[in-house]
Amino acid sequence: MTIALNLPLNPNAGIPHYTAHGNECALFESAWSRQLPILLKGPTGCGKTRFVRHMAARLGLPVSTVSCHDDLTAADLTGRYLLKGGETVWVDGPLTKAVREGGVCYLDEIVEARKDVAVVLHPLTDDRRLLPLERTGELIEAQSSFMVVVSYNPGYQNLMKSLKPSTRQRFVSIEFDFLPRDREIAAVSIESGLAESRVAPLVDLARRLRTLKGQDLEEGVSTRLIIYCATLVDAGMPLVEAVRAAIIEPLTDEADVKAALVEVAAATLGR
Amino acid sequence: MTIALNLPLNPNAGIPHYTAHGNECALFESAWSRQLPILLKGPTGCGKTRFVRHMAARLGLPVSTVSCHDDLTAADLTGRYLLKGGETVWVDGPLTKAVREGGVCYLDEIVEARKDVAVVLHPLTDDRRLLPLERTGELIEAQSSFMVVVSYNPGYQNLMKSLKPSTRQRFVSIEFDFLPRDREIAAVSIESGLAESRVAPLVDLARRLRTLKGQDLEEGVSTRLIIYCATLVDAGMPLVEAVRAAIIEPLTDEADVKAALVEVAAATLGR
Amino acid sequence: MTIALNLPLNPNAGIPHYTAHGNECALFESAWSRQLPILLKGPTGCGKTRFVRHMAARLGLPVSTVSCHDDLTAADLTGRYLLKGGETVWVDGPLTKAVREGGVCYLDEIVEARKDVAVVLHPLTDDRRLLPLERTGELIEAQSSFMVVVSYNPGYQNLMKSLKPSTRQRFVSIEFDFLPRDREIAAVSIESGLAESRVAPLVDLARRLRTLKGQDLEEGVSTRLIIYCATLVDAGMPLVEAVRAAIIEPLTDEADVKAALVEVAAATLGR
Amino acid sequence: MTIALNLPLNPNAGIPHYTAHGNECALFESAWSRQLPILLKGPTGCGKTRFVRHMAARLGLPVSTVSCHDDLTAADLTGRYLLKGGETVWVDGPLTKAVREGGVCYLDEIVEARKDVAVVLHPLTDDRRLLPLERTGELIEAQSSFMVVVSYNPGYQNLMKSLKPSTRQRFVSIEFDFLPRDREIAAVSIESGLAESRVAPLVDLARRLRTLKGQDLEEGVSTRLIIYCATLVDAGMPLVEAVRAAIIEPLTDEADVKAALVEVAAATLGR
Amino acid sequence: MTIALNLPLNPNAGIPHYTAHGNECALFESAWSRQLPILLKGPTGCGKTRFVRHMAARLGLPVSTVSCHDDLTAADLTGRYLLKGGETVWVDGPLTKAVREGGVCYLDEIVEARKDVAVVLHPLTDDRRLLPLERTGELIEAQSSFMVVVSYNPGYQNLMKSLKPSTRQRFVSIEFDFLPRDREIAAVSIESGLAESRVAPLVDLARRLRTLKGQDLEEGVSTRLIIYCATLVDAGMPLVEAVRAAIIEPLTDEADVKAALVEVAAATLGR
Amino acid sequence: MTIALNLPLNPNAGIPHYTAHGNECALFESAWSRQLPILLKGPTGCGKTRFVRHMAARLGLPVSTVSCHDDLTAADLTGRYLLKGGETVWVDGPLTKAVREGGVCYLDEIVEARKDVAVVLHPLTDDRRLLPLERTGELIEAQSSFMVVVSYNPGYQNLMKSLKPSTRQRFVSIEFDFLPRDREIAAVSIESGLAESRVAPLVDLARRLRTLKGQDLEEGVSTRLIIYCATLVDAGMPLVEAVRAAIIEPLTDEADVKAALVEVAAATLGR
Repeated sequence: MTIALNLPLNPNAGIPHYTAHGNECALFESAWSRQLPILLKGPTGCGKTRFVRHMAARLGLPVSTVSCHDDLTAADLTGRYLLKGGETVWVDGPLTKAVREGGVCYLDEIVEARKDVAVVLHPLTDDRRLLPLERTGELIEAQSSFMVVVSYNPGYQNLMKSLKPSTRQRFVSIEFDFLPRDREIAAVSIESGLAESRVAPLVDLARRLRTLKGQDLEEGVSTRLIIYCATLVDAGMPLVEAVRAAIIEPLTDEADVKAALVEVAAATLGR
Repeated sequence: MTIALNLPLNPNAGIPHYTAHGNECALFESAWSRQLPILLKGPTGCGKTRFVRHMAARLGLPVSTVSCHDDLTAADLTGRYLLKGGETVWVDGPLTKAVREGGVCYLDEIVEARKDVAVVLHPLTDDRRLLPLERTGELIEAQSSFMVVVSYNPGYQNLMKSLKPSTRQRFVSIEFDFLPRDREIAAVSIESGLAESRVAPLVDLARRLRTLKGQDLEEGVSTRLIIYCATLVDAGMPLVEAVRAAIIEPLTDEADVKAALVEVAAATLGR
Repeated sequence: MTIALNLPLNPNAGIPHYTAHGNECALFESAWSRQLPILLKGPTGCGKTRFVRHMAARLGLPVSTVSCHDDLTAADLTGRYLLKGGETVWVDGPLTKAVREGGVCYLDEIVEARKDVAVVLHPLTDDRRLLPLERTGELIEAQSSFMVVVSYNPGYQNLMKSLKPSTRQRFVSIEFDFLPRDREIAAVSIESGLAESRVAPLVDLARRLRTLKGQDLEEGVSTRLIIYCATLVDAGMPLVEAVRAAIIEPLTDEADVKAALVEVAAATLGR
Repeated sequence: MTIALNLPLNPNAGIPHYTAHGNECALFESAWSRQLPILLKGPTGCGKTRFVRHMAARLGLPVSTVSCHDDLTAADLTGRYLLKGGETVWVDGPLTKAVREGGVCYLDEIVEARKDVAVVLHPLTDDRRLLPLERTGELIEAQSSFMVVVSYNPGYQNLMKSLKPSTRQRFVSIEFDFLPRDREIAAVSIESGLAESRVAPLVDLARRLRTLKGQDLEEGVSTRLIIYCATLVDAGMPLVEAVRAAIIEPLTDEADVKAALVEVAAATLGR
Repeated sequence: MTIALNLPLNPNAGIPHYTAHGNECALFESAWSRQLPILLKGPTGCGKTRFVRHMAARLGLPVSTVSCHDDLTAADLTGRYLLKGGETVWVDGPLTKAVREGGVCYLDEIVEARKDVAVVLHPLTDDRRLLPLERTGELIEAQSSFMVVVSYNPGYQNLMKSLKPSTRQRFVSIEFDFLPRDREIAAVSIESGLAESRVAPLVDLARRLRTLKGQDLEEGVSTRLIIYCATLVDAGMPLVEAVRAAIIEPLTDEADVKAALVEVAAATLGR
Repeated sequence: MTIALNLPLNPNAGIPHYTAHGNECALFESAWSRQLPILLKGPTGCGKTRFVRHMAARLGLPVSTVSCHDDLTAADLTGRYLLKGGETVWVDGPLTKAVREGGVCYLDEIVEARKDVAVVLHPLTDDRRLLPLERTGELIEAQSSFMVVVSYNPGYQNLMKSLKPSTRQRFVSIEFDFLPRDREIAAVSIESGLAESRVAPLVDLARRLRTLKGQDLEEGVSTRLIIYCATLVDAGMPLVEAVRAAIIEPLTDEADVKAALVEVAAATLGR
């Protein structure tokens, strides 16, 4: 049995395609030119990571992305000693590399990280732009092109996991939401290969389901899921099955909520 | 004393037998051809692991299975430094191996793992398909045949242990349930060696007991337990003793619930 | 001052004496012949460990016993790297040894262990019978004579510590209780050296005290404690002092409960 | 595309600009001359760190700043053994360096650190002025110019995180608040490059928003955020967009609070 | 200034003095002769440790005492690998040494230890008398003279810290209480050097204060404290000051409770 | 700018000045002569540490002080293995050094330490006076001049952090409070260099504020803070500013409590 691999555009070549929401490109450039760090806020799958890759490519900067999590510590960012040839040798982490060599260091879902991660950014996000490495005794001055970008999803925030004001107030902040209808249809069509006319009902369905957020759904349908759905349809899956596998099942495990979503889908897609 | 060993089919040879529930085989193939990751949802022992092994064998892919648990960290998946000959040498984990060499990496019961495990999958489950190894400074692009499959049991989910939307919305999702009666009888007969006519009452008993889930039982009888029971009967154990040891005792420790199950069994099995 | 050492039978020679409760020996043999794993449930000191040693000796299998506890991790079972001669060398744990060389691996009080211990058993307790060692990159196929046996005491189970259905439903299960009166008298006499006629009142006392479980006592008197008591009597201790030291004091610290037990003892032992 | 980098004053040259609030400079000098340690209290971004850098430069002292966090331990301050050439070699931490060589050791947000950090300061903050290093067996007498400065934000304090009286009562304490209006306008103008006349409305807006602290806002607008805003305006961003990105979005994620802040901004900025 | 050192009897020479409460010496000898392990229960400072040292000396056995605590793990008892000359070398812990060479291993306050400590004793406290060392792969058979003794204070027990029945029911148990009046007077006089006539009122005071246990006092006055008090009196301290420093202050921090105790002391000591 | 350094008396020369409260010096000497350990109880900054240094100097003993905290473990006191020249070498901790060489080992705020710290003191604080080092296999007999002194502040004690009776009842105990008025005035004058007539109103203020403990203040003003205040006044600071910086700000962060304290200060200091 043979299956044709349908590869996406190579993400390492050229400037990744990005559909702008508002003034975020100008804001990013201004902040970067004045060496101010940026915080991106918005729901999952709305394009924050793509935006950072896009802007870094436009500005000719390398970008290093770190997905934060409960166990991510400052040492994972700054570096650590490893044993080589009987010696302990210091190995820079991704943040230290960016500080030394310039470019964007992007910390995705910063609120998930351990608290020391936010703190290590403090001397890098005020006018000092310094990274002290207690373990090596170094005090590194950031390259002029160095920039910190962090993101998080305000919808998840809770008392246990939030940015302290002393961290938040160090960032120029941009709020993201999903794209307007027409731009989202165009973006999904480009990413999935499915014609805009066939994408449109899927986007309309997603927009209806997003209104249920906070009632039956923890989070709205991301643009990514619409792309998945359109991709499966483009690969030949029946529309109903693609919607179920790429939109409904990823949203919920509750049988009655699923049944309701199926009904909304049937009504929206005209079947 | 001698006992004849009755070995099961060698699981490493040929394509493991699999009885399909619905469109899951076509869906798996479509997702794999478009490089989309898959999430399997369903109760214990309904065949999720077998399905992954079956599909990987059909597609000619190696499969690496990781059973997730509370102490599983990202490093267990990505790799770690070991000391060899006075040097620290990097050793790839199962995920890194699959990324480099292609094939399916299957994370069973993903919600049980520590949070960093889900996060390490993020850049591998969007269009980047990249695995950054902070510890080695590598950024590995996944082989075109690389695929992530994860599973979990929605019946266990709770507030502490669930997939965040930012993770969930990265997967095409398939829901599993137990097989329809006739297919389950056939599957148990094949696996246990017991004739279908003798398997049928066991499947009927299991189906009755599954209706008690949520009332007296935490989980329904898995197909695996029916196979165990049929296997003991095939090995010569009296039916009542096999049902007790392979179906009733594995379901509960409560004396009164056991007594009720014994009654249901007697009624169903006609004794 | 000299004291004569009265050594018990050497536990490493021959088949350990075992008094059967019911069909457990046949069930163990059937399960072993079909390569099904076994779960033993029952109160402390009722003979579960002795049963495993007995069956393993009958089947000519080596047995490796691991007592589980809060800090027992999968690595304690599977093995770990140690530094030898400047090299890290892998050293198999007891589970890995049994998988490679065959025989019974017995995990006593499995619910006490950390969750990853249960999970490491999963691929060994379905038809795969495989042990993947992520740290060494090995995938070991179990010897045909390899068997997993686990046990726990349902009386202790609580919400925090229980086997997940996905683990439980992988085992043929046998419930143990204390021996019937006559068999218990015989077993205690054999183990302690005290004549059956002098053992009988002790067993009767234990049986009366077991009815208090759940009211004043957390757990009933184990056969082991009766053996201790009979041993002290056989060594010359007055009956009342032996009962106090070997039966009453091990059961409770509450002064009023103790007083009640002393009264029950006096009534039962006729003094 | 080219973007002109507008670099801030090099923070490593000369005495950093500092606008005094009250008697804090004289108090710092008195405490330093009598070898008394200092505690700074005040909200985020009001200039505590800048003050320490300023005073240290005036007194000709090196300053070593440590941002405290949940995972900061005493060993991070005092030092640790590292493996070099097969030997474990002791490497001084920033506190030990300052004790040996003199100068200011500044621990920012001390209440965030682990408890052992506060305790390691005890023998350094009474008349002993000693640092015992249990790990090396050293007892280091502090240089006469050595000084400990710590800070925290009383607004965050809670039961879990506070300084014990036995620590607090070792420090001369200074309370900080935001600068008076005219001084804040001057400071923002100097830092951002924007004319004072254009800065004034921004400071007025910030002062109005600070009165909302404790009602809708967790923390007032820091001077740092006003500088960010003025910097973006100076870089050509429209005033409304700069206020949103540098003042409103960093303060809150709540849609209704944001709307209220936007209204306050419109009213204050005359639009 | 010179102070004469008044050394106690060398605890390493001869058999430590011990005043028996009841049948505990005979019970210890019987248990030891039949290789049964022993559990000692009783309040702090009533002589449990002294009893073990006494019995071990009488039986000509070496004794190894381990005071248990929250962080004591099985590895602290069994041993661990250390790095020597580039090799990891196994070093026996105190339990392993006693198992190999014989003698008493005494675990004081066993309930304080981590759970794995109790579990490591299981195969040593049934008829197997084996110590499996998973880390070295050894299975050590205990010397015939090896004996486990454990102790705890039932007054402290709580839900979090107690022995599981599966552990408790492995020990012959002896309950300790304070000595009867006359024996306690004699013991204190021997230990402190103060004449019995001067010790008697102190013992009477202690006995009165012990009746307050559970009301105002967490624990009764130990024999050790009476010895301390008598020792201070023998060293020339005024009686009132000695009682305050060695009996009242160690019992409580509450000012009103102290005042009440002082009154009881004045009434009892006739002043 | 030049600032004259006004150094305090070298704490390492001669006997540190100490103003006695009551019989504590005689009690310390008696306890030391009879090898009894001592526990000091009292509020922060009342002179406990100074007392220990004073007595050790009088008795010609070296003193080793350890400030306890949440992360202090027994190994920090007893010692640990370090890697030197490819060998693990044992390095004594401060307690082990004192046991071997004699002198006072002072554990400040013992209740803050981890539980194993208290337990390691047990065999050193009864008649055995032994320190077993499980890790090295040594059993060290304490020098005759070895003495353990511990302290804590009963005002902080809570359910989570307290000494167990089995630990408490091993110490002769001394309660400390603040000095009587005249002695405190003299002590502050000596330490600060400020004339007694100018110190007196500060002590009177402190005494008034101490009566507020438990109502508005967590802890009373320590003698140390009065010395700080007098020192700042002696250095030329205005009295009101010195009181605010050295007494009021260190006591509280609450604006209304501060205002009340300022009023009390104004009333007391006659202004």
